[in-house]
Amino acid sequence: MARQDHPAMPTTVSGFPEMLPAQRAIEASMVDSLRATFELHGFAGIETRAVEPVDVLLAKGSIDHEVYVLRRLQARPAGPGEGEAPVEKGALALHYDLTVPFARYVVENAGALTFPFRRYQVQKVWRGERPQEGRYREFTQVDIDVVGAGSLAAHHDVEMARVMAAAMAQLPLPPVTVSVNDRRLVEGFHRGLGADDAGVAAVLRAVDKIDKVGVDGPGGVRALLAAGAGYDDARCDAALALASITGDAAAVEEGVRALGVDHPLLDAGLEGLLDVLRATDDVAATTGGRVRVAADLSIARGLDYYTGTVYETRMAGFEGLGSICSGGRYDSLATDGRTTYPGVGISLGLTRTLSALLAAGAVTVSRAVPSAVLVAVLDEAGRAASDAVAAALRGRGIPAEVSPDAARLGKQIRHADRRGIPFVWFPAAAAPQDGAAAHEVKDIRSGDQRAADPATWAPPEEDLRPRVTSVSAEVRSGEQR
Amino acid sequence: MARQDHPAMPTTVSGFPEMLPAQRAIEASMVDSLRATFELHGFAGIETRAVEPVDVLLAKGSIDHEVYVLRRLQARPAGPGEGEAPVEKGALALHYDLTVPFARYVVENAGALTFPFRRYQVQKVWRGERPQEGRYREFTQVDIDVVGAGSLAAHHDVEMARVMAAAMAQLPLPPVTVSVNDRRLVEGFHRGLGADDAGVAAVLRAVDKIDKVGVDGPGGVRALLAAGAGYDDARCDAALALASITGDAAAVEEGVRALGVDHPLLDAGLEGLLDVLRATDDVAATTGGRVRVAADLSIARGLDYYTGTVYETRMAGFEGLGSICSGGRYDSLATDGRTTYPGVGISLGLTRTLSALLAAGAVTVSRAVPSAVLVAVLDEAGRAASDAVAAALRGRGIPAEVSPDAARLGKQIRHADRRGIPFVWFPAAAAPQDGAAAHEVKDIRSGDQRAADPATWAPPEEDLRPRVTSVSAEVRSGEQR
Repeated sequence: MARQDHPAMPTTVSGFPEMLPAQRAIEASMVDSLRATFELHGFAGIETRAVEPVDVLLAKGSIDHEVYVLRRLQARPAGPGEGEAPVEKGALALHYDLTVPFARYVVENAGALTFPFRRYQVQKVWRGERPQEGRYREFTQVDIDVVGAGSLAAHHDVEMARVMAAAMAQLPLPPVTVSVNDRRLVEGFHRGLGADDAGVAAVLRAVDKIDKVGVDGPGGVRALLAAGAGYDDARCDAALALASITGDAAAVEEGVRALGVDHPLLDAGLEGLLDVLRATDDVAATTGGRVRVAADLSIARGLDYYTGTVYETRMAGFEGLGSICSGGRYDSLATDGRTTYPGVGISLGLTRTLSALLAAGAVTVSRAVPSAVLVAVLDEAGRAASDAVAAALRGRGIPAEVSPDAARLGKQIRHADRRGIPFVWFPAAAAPQDGAAAHEVKDIRSGDQRAADPATWAPPEEDLRPRVTSVSAEVRSGEQR
Repeated sequence: MARQDHPAMPTTVSGFPEMLPAQRAIEASMVDSLRATFELHGFAGIETRAVEPVDVLLAKGSIDHEVYVLRRLQARPAGPGEGEAPVEKGALALHYDLTVPFARYVVENAGALTFPFRRYQVQKVWRGERPQEGRYREFTQVDIDVVGAGSLAAHHDVEMARVMAAAMAQLPLPPVTVSVNDRRLVEGFHRGLGADDAGVAAVLRAVDKIDKVGVDGPGGVRALLAAGAGYDDARCDAALALASITGDAAAVEEGVRALGVDHPLLDAGLEGLLDVLRATDDVAATTGGRVRVAADLSIARGLDYYTGTVYETRMAGFEGLGSICSGGRYDSLATDGRTTYPGVGISLGLTRTLSALLAAGAVTVSRAVPSAVLVAVLDEAGRAASDAVAAALRGRGIPAEVSPDAARLGKQIRHADRRGIPFVWFPAAAAPQDGAAAHEVKDIRSGDQRAADPATWAPPEEDLRPRVTSVSAEVRSGEQR
C-alpha cells in the first residue's frame, strides 16, 4: 500500500512527501469536493486524535503495519548507559489508518451519537515503513463509514458504493471501476467444496495473490490451494473459475450457479452481492461513464475484519497502482462488551492517487494562487487606493492581492504572470497609456485592457478560482509526441 | 500556551482532545471561513509534513518546547538489556509549530516559489508536555505569513493585521482586540536609557511578565529590572511608563515622546508602529466593532526571532485565556546561506480558542449533521423511490439522507429529531394522513406539513446547512439565571 512510485512531489525526508502550492491547490480542491458530496449525503465530518495506545493499534487490524511510537524528548532517563525502557503498554503511537481510531471513537462516544452513525474523516496517517521500501510514511486517507448499534441493514452496503461513486465522479480522475465481492459468497463456496476453517483462510490468501504469483507452477495459486486447503485439480479449477467471474448481476448469478456448488453461506453472499450490483447498475449512466460498479469475484481483501461485501477500485490507465479505494462490511470491529457496532465503509487513498496523477501529468490546475486579480500600485502614496480596489473586489467574492511594490507597471504585470494571476488592475489615474481617470483592468493572457468599475466588474466564472482539470491519457500521449 | 483549562471535549488520552460531531462541525466551519478569507486575500494554502529532524526543531525557536520523537516500533534493537540508542541527529520528531517547518519549506522550495510568497497553513501540531501540566499535546494552529526573498516591505506588517482582523471578524467570536507593538521601539527605548544587550534581553523578559509577577515586591518587575538591567528607580519608572502606553497612533506618539528618551532604533520602531496603527484605525468600523487594532507597548513576545512589529490578540470575556492569535515580523528566521527570507506572520490557536468558547457555551451549531432533510421510507420495497427523492434534492445542493429503516413514521420522525434534521420528507403515496399521491414535507419543529415537489422544493436558506452562532455573554448569563 501507498507505495511511493511517483516522486513528483518534493520529498526531502524519505517517505514524507510535501506539495508545492499548485499541487496542494489540487489536493485541497479534491478534499473540498469529497466533503461536499459526503455532506450532501448526510455524513458528518469528524477527526480523531493522531495517536492511539500502541497495544490498541497492534491488537487490531493487520499485524504487519509498522507503527511509529512516540516518546517525549525530555522523558529520556539520564541514567547510566542512556538506555530507554522498552515500549510499554499504554505508550502512544501514530495511527496507521482511520478505521481503528473510528471504532474506538464510536465505542467511547456511543452515548452522544445517534445510530446508524454516518461519518466521513479526512486525515493523515503514518506508517513506520523501513526506509528502503520506498513507501509513503505519511499520507492522507479519506474514509466514509456507516455504523449501527447492534445491527445495520444491508442497504447501507449499496449506499457506500453509491456515495463513493458519486464522490469519485466529481474528482479529476480517469474513469474508475468499483469492484465488488462478498466474503460470504467466497467462504460459502469453499465450504461447499469441503474446505474447513484453515482451508478457507488459505483459499482467501491464495486467491488474493493471483495477480502476483500466477496460476500454475511452484508458488502459483494451484500449488497454494493444494498445500493450504488440500484441493485436488477439480477443486482448484472450481476455485479459479469462481475467481474469474466478473460483470453485472446476471453474469454473476449465471457464473456462480453454473459451478454447481451449494452452501447456505454461498446463497447469503450471492444474494447480498446481487442486491448491491442491481442497486448500482445505473451508476455508469448517472456518472456519465466516469464510475462503473461491477463484480469481481477474485477480490477478497486481506484484512480479517471484513465479513460481507468488499470493495476495491481501479483507475483506467493506472492499473499498476492497485486499488485506490477499498473497504467493506465488518460485523464486529467495534464492541464495548455489551453492544456490538457493525459497520460498512470505504477508504480512499488520496495521497497515493493524487501522487500518481501528478507524476503522469494527468491533472493540472490553472494557477497556484487563489488571486484572480493583482491590483497594481503606481506609487507607495497610492497604496491605500489600490487596497480599496482590492477590498471592493473581495467584498464581492473576487480573490485579489495588491502589488508588493510600486515597480514599473511592466514589472508588476510580470509579477502577476509569474504567479499565474490572470488579471492586473490599474487604479484610476494610474492607467498607463493615456492618463485616463478611469480604472482599467487587463487580461494579461490576451492583452485585452478595458475600463472597469471595482463595484461591478467580475472575471469570467472560469477565472474566479483556480480550475482543476483532468487531462485524459489521449491528450497526454499527444503532448509527448 | 494551549493550556487545557476547558475540558468540554472528550479527552480519553490526556492532552489529546477529540470533538463530538457538533463540535467538529463548528471547527470545520471556522476553518472553512478562515480559508475563504485568506484565499480572498491571495494566500495559497500549503501543508508541510508532520515531522522535522529533531536537531532542526531544537535549533530553532524557543528551547523550552517539549517535542515528541518518533521511533519505528520494529526498529527496536533486540540486543541485551533491550536498551535503545539515544536520540540521534536526524531522528524525526513531530513539529511543535508551523513556523519552523514553513521556514524550512521556503528555503527548500525557493526556486519553485514566487516572492513575496503568501501562504496560509492549517495543521495540527504536537508538544510533548508533561502529563501533569494539563496542557494540550495535540492542537490545531492557523498561520498566515508573507515572506520575501532578501527583503520585505513594511506595508506587509499592516496587511497581516488587516487580513487576520478580516478573518476573525467572520468567526463566531466575542469582540477581539489585536494589540500591536514594535520590538525596535522597546529595544531602542531601553538602549536610550543605557541598557546593553543583556540589559535589553532582561527588560523584554521582565516586561513580558508584568501580568504574572506584578510591579513591586520581591520577584516583581522592578526587582527584575534592577537585577537584570541594573535599572535605578527612575529608569524603572520609565520602563513601566512605556509599557503602560496603549491606544491609537496619537496616544502612542504623545505617550512615547513625553518620556523624553532618544535613540535611532526607538525612532524607527515608533515610525513602524504608527504606520501600522494609522493603516488599521478603520478596522473597528469595517468589522462592525468585532475587531479592534490598538497599541499595547507592554507586548514583547518571548520568541527571539521577532525583530519588529509584534501582535497579540485577546477576546472580550476570555482575557484569562491570554493571546489567541500572535505573531510578528522576523527578519532572519529562514536563510539558505546566500539569501535571507524575512517575513511577517500571525498564528491563531484554533483548538484553544474553540475549546474555551465551547466550555463557556459561547458558540453553538443548529445541528450536528449536514442533512437538512430525512426522506422517510414506508416499506423496504419503496426504498428506491425514497432514494430518488434524496438524489433530486442533492442534485440541487440540499443535503439529504434516507431513513435507515421502514419503521413507523413516528419513529422515523423521532430519528430525524434526534439527529437534529429539521425536515422529514414523505414520498408520494407514503403521505401519512390521507393517502394523497403527492409528496409532502414536514418541518418537525413547527409541525407544518405541506405538499412539495422534489424538483423544486428548498428549505429556508438558514436551514440549508448547520448554522454556527456566537452566543453573547449577556445571553449566556441570562440562561444561567
